[in-house]
Amino acid sequence: MPNQWIRPGDNPDLTKERKTCTFDTDELTANLYGSRHAMERRREITEKVATDPDFANPILHEFLTREKRIEATAKKTRALVQRGPELCDVTNPGEMWHLVNEAIGIEGYPLGLHYVMFLPSLYGQADEELAAEIIPRAMTLQIIGTYAQTEMGHGTNLRELETTATYDKKTQEFVIHTPTRSAMKWWPGNLGKMSNYAVVACQLYIDGKKIGPHNFLVQLRCEKTHQPLPGITVGDIGPKIGYNTADNGYLAFDNVRIPRKRMLMKHAKVSPDGTYTHPIHSKLSYGTMVHVRAHMIYTHGHMLATAATVATRYSAVRRQGRIEQGGPEVQILDYQTQQHRIFPQIARAYAMMFTGLEVKSLYAKYLEEIAKGQADLLPDLHAITSGLKSVVTHMAALGIEQCRMSCGGHGYSDASGLPKLYGVQIGGCTYEGENMVMLQQTARYLMKAVKWAGQGKSLSHSVAYMAKPTIGKKSLIGMEGGDISREHEVILETLEHVSRRLYTEASQLWEKRIKAGETKERAWNGVTVEMNRASRAHTRLFMARAFHRRLLSSPSSIRSVLTDLFSLYLHYECVDMAHHLLEDGHCNGGQIQYLKKRLYEDLTTLRPNAVSLVDSFEQSDRELNSVLGRRDGNVYEELYQWAKKSELNYTDVLPAVEKYMKPMMEENRSKL
Amino acid sequence: MPNQWIRPGDNPDLTKERKTCTFDTDELTANLYGSRHAMERRREITEKVATDPDFANPILHEFLTREKRIEATAKKTRALVQRGPELCDVTNPGEMWHLVNEAIGIEGYPLGLHYVMFLPSLYGQADEELAAEIIPRAMTLQIIGTYAQTEMGHGTNLRELETTATYDKKTQEFVIHTPTRSAMKWWPGNLGKMSNYAVVACQLYIDGKKIGPHNFLVQLRCEKTHQPLPGITVGDIGPKIGYNTADNGYLAFDNVRIPRKRMLMKHAKVSPDGTYTHPIHSKLSYGTMVHVRAHMIYTHGHMLATAATVATRYSAVRRQGRIEQGGPEVQILDYQTQQHRIFPQIARAYAMMFTGLEVKSLYAKYLEEIAKGQADLLPDLHAITSGLKSVVTHMAALGIEQCRMSCGGHGYSDASGLPKLYGVQIGGCTYEGENMVMLQQTARYLMKAVKWAGQGKSLSHSVAYMAKPTIGKKSLIGMEGGDISREHEVILETLEHVSRRLYTEASQLWEKRIKAGETKERAWNGVTVEMNRASRAHTRLFMARAFHRRLLSSPSSIRSVLTDLFSLYLHYECVDMAHHLLEDGHCNGGQIQYLKKRLYEDLTTLRPNAVSLVDSFEQSDRELNSVLGRRDGNVYEELYQWAKKSELNYTDVLPAVEKYMKPMMEENRSKL
Repeated sequence: MPNQWIRPGDNPDLTKERKTCTFDTDELTANLYGSRHAMERRREITEKVATDPDFANPILHEFLTREKRIEATAKKTRALVQRGPELCDVTNPGEMWHLVNEAIGIEGYPLGLHYVMFLPSLYGQADEELAAEIIPRAMTLQIIGTYAQTEMGHGTNLRELETTATYDKKTQEFVIHTPTRSAMKWWPGNLGKMSNYAVVACQLYIDGKKIGPHNFLVQLRCEKTHQPLPGITVGDIGPKIGYNTADNGYLAFDNVRIPRKRMLMKHAKVSPDGTYTHPIHSKLSYGTMVHVRAHMIYTHGHMLATAATVATRYSAVRRQGRIEQGGPEVQILDYQTQQHRIFPQIARAYAMMFTGLEVKSLYAKYLEEIAKGQADLLPDLHAITSGLKSVVTHMAALGIEQCRMSCGGHGYSDASGLPKLYGVQIGGCTYEGENMVMLQQTARYLMKAVKWAGQGKSLSHSVAYMAKPTIGKKSLIGMEGGDISREHEVILETLEHVSRRLYTEASQLWEKRIKAGETKERAWNGVTVEMNRASRAHTRLFMARAFHRRLLSSPSSIRSVLTDLFSLYLHYECVDMAHHLLEDGHCNGGQIQYLKKRLYEDLTTLRPNAVSLVDSFEQSDRELNSVLGRRDGNVYEELYQWAKKSELNYTDVLPAVEKYMKPMMEENRSKL
Repeated sequence: MPNQWIRPGDNPDLTKERKTCTFDTDELTANLYGSRHAMERRREITEKVATDPDFANPILHEFLTREKRIEATAKKTRALVQRGPELCDVTNPGEMWHLVNEAIGIEGYPLGLHYVMFLPSLYGQADEELAAEIIPRAMTLQIIGTYAQTEMGHGTNLRELETTATYDKKTQEFVIHTPTRSAMKWWPGNLGKMSNYAVVACQLYIDGKKIGPHNFLVQLRCEKTHQPLPGITVGDIGPKIGYNTADNGYLAFDNVRIPRKRMLMKHAKVSPDGTYTHPIHSKLSYGTMVHVRAHMIYTHGHMLATAATVATRYSAVRRQGRIEQGGPEVQILDYQTQQHRIFPQIARAYAMMFTGLEVKSLYAKYLEEIAKGQADLLPDLHAITSGLKSVVTHMAALGIEQCRMSCGGHGYSDASGLPKLYGVQIGGCTYEGENMVMLQQTARYLMKAVKWAGQGKSLSHSVAYMAKPTIGKKSLIGMEGGDISREHEVILETLEHVSRRLYTEASQLWEKRIKAGETKERAWNGVTVEMNRASRAHTRLFMARAFHRRLLSSPSSIRSVLTDLFSLYLHYECVDMAHHLLEDGHCNGGQIQYLKKRLYEDLTTLRPNAVSLVDSFEQSDRELNSVLGRRDGNVYEELYQWAKKSELNYTDVLPAVEKYMKPMMEENRSKL
């Protein structure tokens, strides 16, 4: 069966791998990106960007200072804005995402927050008058904006934000102020240097009364000079583990006055005389969060796919050591430990992207629903995306590091592309809701779901299984040599049992503490580790089910390889969660041994398709940004070409040596 | 009981924490660093460096380019060399290690490899004549050297090194040559820019016959100009995830001739006429490896301690959210999830450092032994340090990231110091023997040990328990409310059972494959994941036993807090390895539930001592290099002062904006 990526001049080991492919890589790629058309559009964009001088990198980012990286990115951003429509359909979010990935990369760019947060919050929260004034200017990039919510002292707990917006009836203005050091806005992307406007979350005060957090449009910099306006202190918060091309910023206000109409008043309002009107739909804003998290699930799967591509291709090219005495040096992909490190990451990347696709389409359904005035889908979607955000980001991070370490020493070099990838990706564990908090949100929803089930109410999509009875212990027995689809279903039911049981036990622990006299809240704090454990199991079940649904609806040409991949995924999950399978005796040791045996068989089964499975992610060399992961496998020569560009190689004798080490040695020689 | 670190002006939440300390922090610190004297010497060094202008940082490394960082480090290095003896006892490795940590940091410096690899290999392998010529010059730093072994294409598998040293009888020279691109030396520290000499590992060829890898002293750069010598290509390999202050290098030879006497001929020899004499003790070189790995165990524990210190102090200072409705915002250290993330890392850091101390003293014993002509201790020490190197480096890495993420957004900033720490520490999973390979070495030794046990031979230190019978299943039952030291022993015996069982089962799997017709080697490749699993369990048992031995020999003043810490350590290990405890029915679900309950109790028990336990690591603010981990807890103001120094804040309007974003916005405005 055809792997589409064999080219003359490729590393022969990679060509050999591609020739053992048993499926049509195009078919899998199309499935992964939604359709053949979408796949082809991706390819067109990739090709255009690759040959476009506006997006060329005269010096690789790895060898530039932050300031110079940002400058190079700003240059590309301007070209992107000016020429976007000729490069892709700018109204198609999938195409735009790919274009930005190709043209700019994953470390951030000056308009990231403008499009993802500034514009959506204006659309969603500005009243008609303000929207009419500002949105056209923002849409046409006459101004650049961001969204400033997080403060130095408060991220997760929004209700405690310290920045104040005090209404002054006399002048019909709000006075925006930063009362303490910890009240400084801290972290918002593109805030430090790029944006001249921001939507700023402040505590609203009217007549000395604290109303709570609301959003205000504030101009930060002069439109002409780009200098900060009077009363505004703004700057970059410094280097980070990742996103160093973004100017995450700080911001403080010294009694800055803005007109009343710059409050975002689509929902809550303050009238000229200071009368406050409450918003009607206070939960509507959850929709945006759900949307962002759904997107994260997909993109973090995509980042894990990057790492898996690099590790798999490099492991096919790298030869080291022997399995048989006297045999040739083997491709390191032949070692069981290497397969065990990498193949599950391939499976997980697929699982995450498939889950992301499902959740995105659920979100689209929700939007249809809300247009009809209903919001029934939201709570379930909110709960599962919270859990997924947490599980996927952490799982992807661990996977990326396993892939990186599987590349040995070269994985440690920036030439592998993986250090930067990890730095960017791991941020997802923290932003958009800290992972431990996210899991608790899922747990609270599960708790309600069980209560509803007890009351005979029907349960939504992600939690419906909570009302199912467990079919009986030891359900894994007798699967050997049986029907693979039956095995999959039995394992999925086992995972359902695990999630139900963990949740039930955590609930009982909670109730026990309450009965023993603790308040509900304190008792909750005593069981959160167990609650989060249950949430993880629930979320991992959801991912397995989403992968399974995708498998069942996949075309026959890729059904077989996806079945193998799904088997690996399930067996790996079971072994990884064996503790939970065993704890209540639902499974016994023999069954775990069986699952391990199956897992090791899966590794062998997938071996001939490993390279083709990562080829099907179809990430271009430019997206991979990795000497090790190149499609052509010509790693070693390129490694040398890459290293020669190191800033330390600009001179043969480094200034540090000239100034310090050479004089030191000379001095020591002259002493004798 | 006194925590020694309360000072006026400290963050009141940290002072409050220090006042609840139940032990003498000095006593624990002294125990951790070997003695009161050692502790006091550490303090003296810390104080001297803190106030010494030679070691001041006019600009923090975080805001410098690599070239400038290296220059700043070279400056400090020269001061260190010139003034070392006034700062510490330079013959005491512990003091030197601390001095380098304080004065220079952990990211590498120009003499790192000179002291750790170049000089030791000359001492160990140069014959008398070469030693007399070169060692005095190296000792007095008239030259700087490194050790060049790893090549682009071969790291782990030394026998396949490609660099050749061909003996030319006529001229009595070796011709050193790099025959292929992948043969380039790649990675050696300080090779790129600093060293003018190197010990180079080459394949020795005599009369067309390949003899195998041997070491040669090669001059790389002119002593006067520091320019590379003819035939030598040398440079820096570029930026990495960590160690960016080190000039890891590449090196290629174009038929470079060196005198015969520059071969390191203490063991193997080549006579003028080309006669080759084999080395006598081929295993002696393992000693150095063991030494380096023993040191790594301690230092990686120390790095985890850095992260635990930062996370614990910051979590005491940070207030966010409420546990009780209407209550005040709580210190985030009060959340169970936060304790569950951080406290086990404190316990593990102690466990690693205690284990490191034990292994170091075993190594000292081995040196005494070898002086008497025996080497019986070596195989056991080699096996356990291989396992420990693998388990400790990976466990520390996961722990550092948990600590970093527990600091929320601020942990993601370089201001936390943790991104750099992770970058440096994670390298340990790869260098000095790739972790997967290390675990297999341990497994092979365990296999032999069981064989010896079967033959009635007595077993060495780390594997003696392999010959013990398991005392009976369900040994954990009935521990509730019992004697804590009895509980510890029962858990340790349980871990012994787990390790024995996992190893036995992996062996059986191996034999089964051999019986089914596979070669031994291929069969091994089919069971390495299981073998490595067994090695990890064995190694974790060793760490628990080492911690326990330290506990039993600790003074009564710290016995109680160490007992609490050890309990947490054991319970966490058991829950983390519950899969293995449950699999064969040795424990049941009820016992795991019991262990979890104990674990959550431990978190509460340790809470009042958490800050004091990390204070006892006694890492100075300079070592921590973290705005979040400062001893005084004054985090928020310093965060702002730190960020203001960002290179992006040198101008209010960034060149990138001036050049690209401002014109873009102006153009868009003018269009209307």
